[in-house]
Amino acid sequence: MPERAQRRRALTARFRDLEIDGLLVSFLPNVRYLTGFTGSNAILALTPDSALMYTDLRYQTQSKQQVDCKSQAMKGSIWHAAAGWAKRKKLTRIGVEAARVTLEQQADLAKKLGNGIVIIGVGREVEKLRRVKSPEEIQAISRSVQINSMAYAAALARFKAGMSERDLAAEIGYQMRRAGADDTAFETIVASGDRSALPHARPSSAAIEPNRLLLIDMGALCEGYTSDMTRVVVPGRITSETRRLYQAVLEAQLAAIDAVRPGVKAVDVDNAARQTLKKHSLDELFKHSTGHGLGLEIHEAPRLGKREKLKLEAGMVITIEPGAYKEGFGGVRIEDTVLVTETGCQILTPTAKKLVAI
Amino acid sequence: MPERAQRRRALTARFRDLEIDGLLVSFLPNVRYLTGFTGSNAILALTPDSALMYTDLRYQTQSKQQVDCKSQAMKGSIWHAAAGWAKRKKLTRIGVEAARVTLEQQADLAKKLGNGIVIIGVGREVEKLRRVKSPEEIQAISRSVQINSMAYAAALARFKAGMSERDLAAEIGYQMRRAGADDTAFETIVASGDRSALPHARPSSAAIEPNRLLLIDMGALCEGYTSDMTRVVVPGRITSETRRLYQAVLEAQLAAIDAVRPGVKAVDVDNAARQTLKKHSLDELFKHSTGHGLGLEIHEAPRLGKREKLKLEAGMVITIEPGAYKEGFGGVRIEDTVLVTETGCQILTPTAKKLVAI
Repeated sequence: MPERAQRRRALTARFRDLEIDGLLVSFLPNVRYLTGFTGSNAILALTPDSALMYTDLRYQTQSKQQVDCKSQAMKGSIWHAAAGWAKRKKLTRIGVEAARVTLEQQADLAKKLGNGIVIIGVGREVEKLRRVKSPEEIQAISRSVQINSMAYAAALARFKAGMSERDLAAEIGYQMRRAGADDTAFETIVASGDRSALPHARPSSAAIEPNRLLLIDMGALCEGYTSDMTRVVVPGRITSETRRLYQAVLEAQLAAIDAVRPGVKAVDVDNAARQTLKKHSLDELFKHSTGHGLGLEIHEAPRLGKREKLKLEAGMVITIEPGAYKEGFGGVRIEDTVLVTETGCQILTPTAKKLVAI
Repeated sequence: MPERAQRRRALTARFRDLEIDGLLVSFLPNVRYLTGFTGSNAILALTPDSALMYTDLRYQTQSKQQVDCKSQAMKGSIWHAAAGWAKRKKLTRIGVEAARVTLEQQADLAKKLGNGIVIIGVGREVEKLRRVKSPEEIQAISRSVQINSMAYAAALARFKAGMSERDLAAEIGYQMRRAGADDTAFETIVASGDRSALPHARPSSAAIEPNRLLLIDMGALCEGYTSDMTRVVVPGRITSETRRLYQAVLEAQLAAIDAVRPGVKAVDVDNAARQTLKKHSLDELFKHSTGHGLGLEIHEAPRLGKREKLKLEAGMVITIEPGAYKEGFGGVRIEDTVLVTETGCQILTPTAKKLVAI
């Protein structure tokens, strides 16, 4: 059975437990995962023995080319079309994605459905399927990771003393697209000196400071799939304090990577990083979780944080990104994209992690 | 009264009609509009005589700096905090934004509220306020428009024969940030030849074709405010067919701009463009609406399309962007950002509209 049909089958196999006889999938990354469709407006209508995707006329040709189940490009509201579908199928309990559907969409759907059909908000069922990646998805993510690292190298090669954070971020975006990315996966972070210690620094027009930490967090979007990498470098001379901070975070990052294998709880990977930082009395300066899944979205399940009991499985793709942030001095975060394998893990990110002066 | 307090006052003045005694605003552009906060997680809790914004610890410092009403940065769910607020205030009917709140958020809120407080989904009340811009907003949009046009000129100056659509899009993004934008407002469209006639072309790796239409649709995001411009140029020689198509669309665009003034219905502006294209037998090739509002979002109310009865008001900022798309030949769209004034309108976009060969 083709892969996407299998995914739809895995989803409809859950209908009995969810107590639904039909499901409307409207969250676009989920629609893409289940059908291949990359447009900006679609609903996939599923029953255990049928799959039909609604979109609008802009996507008439594209939907026929991309979608591996029935599809219909139409004028007017696709929610209304989905209501008509549910009535024709004589459904009684129709599921919608509770985390994605708005009250307005639900009310609109309910009005068109009329009496006799109940709308059931269901949990993140497609997102759960998406946690474990297929070989094709792993390839797509690897490509995104490679392009991201190429862009990093190309942008750093163009670094000049006195450049602003914003100019370097612009250079990174440019090199990303030159390397083959469709877009950045998120707004590139370029943060120098004190600003590298801020949790959510946006590139400013300030000049990048010599002899201080420069933090770069960047990701590519390539054919729908994301990548995510953080590196810190020092323009100029590396002080011993900078080196000590860097080595401690690197040790924590490697410890977390060492902990990654199937069957290990997400919290234990987080703990490996946290305990290593504690040894260096830096755990108080590590204010976020150790990582997150990525794929069609830049942040997906699983989350690698405190209290995350989910066990890792082969095929998950996650980031490992501990950090330590010293106010008034600077921050270090080191982040790789990592694939969970049968025996442990594989670091997809090819960029070296030795601290370099540029 | 300061401007943001006035906006909040205008909103709470609607509570009686909406039959609510409190309102939770969670859509981030709306929160920003009402408080000044630019972070990525917030809820503004409003009663007729109080305003309190909840956010998380990442934004502790930032929220105090930006927000002109009470704010609280906290650990844990801001929805749960908002539920606690509603109980302490002894509210009975609490409004949420129906077009923005998901079923999951509603269910979560309802659980924490317990019995005795009803959740009411309300319409796009803040978005309605946002239709007419303040002088400060008009300045911010103008700045975004200027930067966008500067980036357009800088990128075109770097055009080389044989360049791919993707490379030119990358150059545009780069020049946008160099000119001072925080980001692009949307994915830049660079579409050459046949592809310029596609409704939603994404930049491809194909080389830009000589002597054929090249369509560029781009916008900047500057301090939260967007801009939007489309131009077509011809690399090489301009054929008479290209020139005829261009002149007809330009005539339609100017006719639509001429129609813009307070009191005119949105549909009438759309009609002005459509009737002009009809005169040239091109109305069938104009497949979208004539324009849209912009501001904190790239697409806002009002929409300038068929059946849009809303009357324009001074202070609205809209795009005027008719087009004609000939399959197998190419498409022309000409788009300016326009401010509705007391007496008519002012074209904010400074880029010339004479058809040029590059």
